[in-house]
Amino acid sequence: TSSMEKPNIVTCTAPVNIAVIKYWGKRNEELILPINSSLSVTLHQDQLKTTTTVVASKSFQEDRIWLNGKEEDISHPRLQSCLREVRRLARKRRNDGNPSLDSAVLSHKVHICSVNNFPTAAGLASSAAGFACLVYTLARVFGVEGELSAIARQGSGSACRSMYGGFVQWLMGQKEDGKDSVAQQVEPESHWPELRILVLVASAEKKPVGSTSGMQTSVETSALLKHRAESVVPGRMAEMIEAIGRRDFATFAELTMKDSNQFHATCLDTYPPIFYLSSVSQQVINLVHRYNRHYGETRVSYTFDAGPNAVIFTLKQHVPEFLQVVQHFFPPETNGGQGSRRKSFSFGINQCFLNILFVFQAGPGPCVVDDPAQHLLGSDGLPKRTV
Amino acid sequence: TSSMEKPNIVTCTAPVNIAVIKYWGKRNEELILPINSSLSVTLHQDQLKTTTTVVASKSFQEDRIWLNGKEEDISHPRLQSCLREVRRLARKRRNDGNPSLDSAVLSHKVHICSVNNFPTAAGLASSAAGFACLVYTLARVFGVEGELSAIARQGSGSACRSMYGGFVQWLMGQKEDGKDSVAQQVEPESHWPELRILVLVASAEKKPVGSTSGMQTSVETSALLKHRAESVVPGRMAEMIEAIGRRDFATFAELTMKDSNQFHATCLDTYPPIFYLSSVSQQVINLVHRYNRHYGETRVSYTFDAGPNAVIFTLKQHVPEFLQVVQHFFPPETNGGQGSRRKSFSFGINQCFLNILFVFQAGPGPCVVDDPAQHLLGSDGLPKRTV
Repeated sequence: TSSMEKPNIVTCTAPVNIAVIKYWGKRNEELILPINSSLSVTLHQDQLKTTTTVVASKSFQEDRIWLNGKEEDISHPRLQSCLREVRRLARKRRNDGNPSLDSAVLSHKVHICSVNNFPTAAGLASSAAGFACLVYTLARVFGVEGELSAIARQGSGSACRSMYGGFVQWLMGQKEDGKDSVAQQVEPESHWPELRILVLVASAEKKPVGSTSGMQTSVETSALLKHRAESVVPGRMAEMIEAIGRRDFATFAELTMKDSNQFHATCLDTYPPIFYLSSVSQQVINLVHRYNRHYGETRVSYTFDAGPNAVIFTLKQHVPEFLQVVQHFFPPETNGGQGSRRKSFSFGINQCFLNILFVFQAGPGPCVVDDPAQHLLGSDGLPKRTV
Repeated sequence: TSSMEKPNIVTCTAPVNIAVIKYWGKRNEELILPINSSLSVTLHQDQLKTTTTVVASKSFQEDRIWLNGKEEDISHPRLQSCLREVRRLARKRRNDGNPSLDSAVLSHKVHICSVNNFPTAAGLASSAAGFACLVYTLARVFGVEGELSAIARQGSGSACRSMYGGFVQWLMGQKEDGKDSVAQQVEPESHWPELRILVLVASAEKKPVGSTSGMQTSVETSALLKHRAESVVPGRMAEMIEAIGRRDFATFAELTMKDSNQFHATCLDTYPPIFYLSSVSQQVINLVHRYNRHYGETRVSYTFDAGPNAVIFTLKQHVPEFLQVVQHFFPPETNGGQGSRRKSFSFGINQCFLNILFVFQAGPGPCVVDDPAQHLLGSDGLPKRTV
C-alpha cells in the first residue's frame, strides 16, 4: 500500500488570532458552544506560530503527544475530542466512498509533536494555535479535507478561528450538536494590508483566573453577560463586519475597544469579580484615548483578553510615532534585563513592566510545511531532539 | 413681629450615607431624576457630619454662603434650586393658610454657613450630607415641615437619602416633574444594632472622573447600564429591602458586593472607560472574598463609590478580627506620617496606602442643634470664626 511506500507524516503550522469581538461564555461546556458569535484577526505566522508534526503508523502501540519537547498525557478530554472527531470524519468520508482515502490509516495510532515559537510568558493564548494546528495536521494525515473548524472548536473554542487567515468570524450556531458553530473567513488577509497589530506584554503580578473557569463563573453569575450575549453582540458583529469590509479604521477601532471593555465589565460583574486588567493595562487604555483625543481621530485601539497584556491595532503610518509615545510614557527599564527578550523592548513603570513584543500584520491560516527537514518527529516516530 | 424678638437662626446637622444599591445615571439632568432606585445606610453622626447654620434677616442685602470657612458663589445652579424650592414650598404653605408660618421671613435674604467635620481627602461624598443639611436647615428657617427629600435631591441626587436615618431607599419615581422621586426610610437605625461600617481610605494616584460627568457619559454610551437600571436593579431593591427587614447579613452583604461590582462594570463599559477601582481596591476585594471563603460564610462585604476607597460592612463581633486581617495584609506604614491622621491607622502597600478611617454604626437623619453656642454664624450674620 501507499502507506508502506512513504511514511505517513505531515507537518503544518497554524497562527494565533486576536479577538476584536470577544468570546466569553459557553452554552455547552463539552461541545464548547459559545453564548455569542465572535470575530478575530489572524496574526501573520512570520513571528508567532505553532508547528505540529503527526505521524501515523501501524507499528505504534498507542497515541502519544509531545508538547514543547515534553511528553504529555494524551487522555486529556479535549485532545481526545479532536482525535475522535477527525477519525470519525475520516471514516465517514471512506464510507461515502472517497477514493483518495487510504483506509488503512484509520486503524493506525498517531504520534503528535507540537512546538510554539513564542514563550508562554507572552500571555498569548497558545491553545488556539495549538488545537488549530493539531486538527489541521491530523486531518491531512487521515486524508480529510473541508470544514474542520467545528472540530478545532472542541479542542479550544477560539481555535476554530485560527483555522482561517485574515478576518474570521465564529458563528455561535443554533444546533444542539454544534454542527453550525463554525468559523468563516470574513475577509482574506490581503484585504487590509495597512493594518498593524502590536502586542504589549505587561508583567502579571499574579496568575489570573483561567478563562475556562472564569467564563463558567461569569455565565452562572453575571446578568450583564447574558444581556451582552443576547442583545449587544449581534449588532456589533454586523457593524464590525461592515467596518472591516470598507476598511473603516475608526469604526473598527472603536468597536474593538468597546467590546474589550464590555468583556472586562462582565468579568467585574461576575461573582466573585474577576480582574484581568492591571494598573498597567489601565494606563495603556488611558494612553490610547489620550493619543486619539490629541489627534481628534481614532488612530489606535486596544484589546485585552484574559490577562493584562494589551494588543494594539493601528495603521502602518502611525506605528513609529505610537511606539515613541509608549516609550515616552513607559520609559525603558535601565536595570537588569529580566523583562527584556530578543526582538522586544522593555519598559519599566513603577514595579511593572511593559514589553513591546512584535509588530504584526494579518496573515494566512494554517499551512502544510513541505520541507521534510522541518518535521518534528523522526522516522522512528519520536521527537528529533528535545526543544 | 416674632422675627424682631428672636433672631431667625437655625443650626442643624446631617449625616453621610453609603449606597448599597447604587445610583448611577440620570434621566433628567436638571431635576436630578435617576434611571434607577437606590438604597443606602445612613452613617451615625458621632464621627462624620455636616453642620449648617442659616440666618434670615431683613437687613441682609443678598443670599450668601460660606463653606468650610470660605465664602462661595451662591449663584451655583444647584444651590439656587434648593433655595428656590424651599421658598416656593414656604409660599405654598402660607397660601394654604399654615398658621405657624411667619410670612415676613419669605422676603428675607439668608446667610448660610456650613462645615464638614471630615476631610475632603477621606473621599466620602460630602455633597450628600451638605445639601441634606442645607435643605433641612433652610426648611426650619422658613417654617416648612414634611417631605423635603425631593428638594435635597435637586442639590445632589444622593442627598435625598441623607434626609432620613437608618436604611433609606430613593424611589426613582415616574413623574416628569420628579415629585415622586423621593427618599423613604425602609428601617430605622435601631433595627439592626449589630451592623458596623468601616471606611478604608486608599490613596488615589490621581483624581478620578467626577460622578456628575461620569454618569452622564455612562448613560450615553453604556448598553449594560441601561440593562442594569431597567432589568437588574428593581429585583435587587426588593431583595435588599427583604434582607434588611430580616437582618439577613449574608444576603445583604452579597447583594451589596454584587451591586458595587456591577456599578463599576458599567463604568468600564462606558466609552471611554472609567476606572474607579485602584489596585488597592482590587486587593481589598480579593481579601474580603478570601476571608469569607476561609470561614465558609459571608461575614464581611465591600462597596466602592466613584473612587478607590472601600466601605466595609460587617457585624460587631467580626470587627476586631477583620481589622487584624487588614493590618496583616496591608502592614502599617513605617516611614513618615503623611498618610496618617487622627483617629486613623495607616497601612502601606507598595506605593499605595490604606487608612482605616472610622468604624461606624447606622445612625439617625438630620437633627436640629439646640445649643446656641453651636451656631456657626454670629448675630451679625457673619461666620463666628474661620474654620
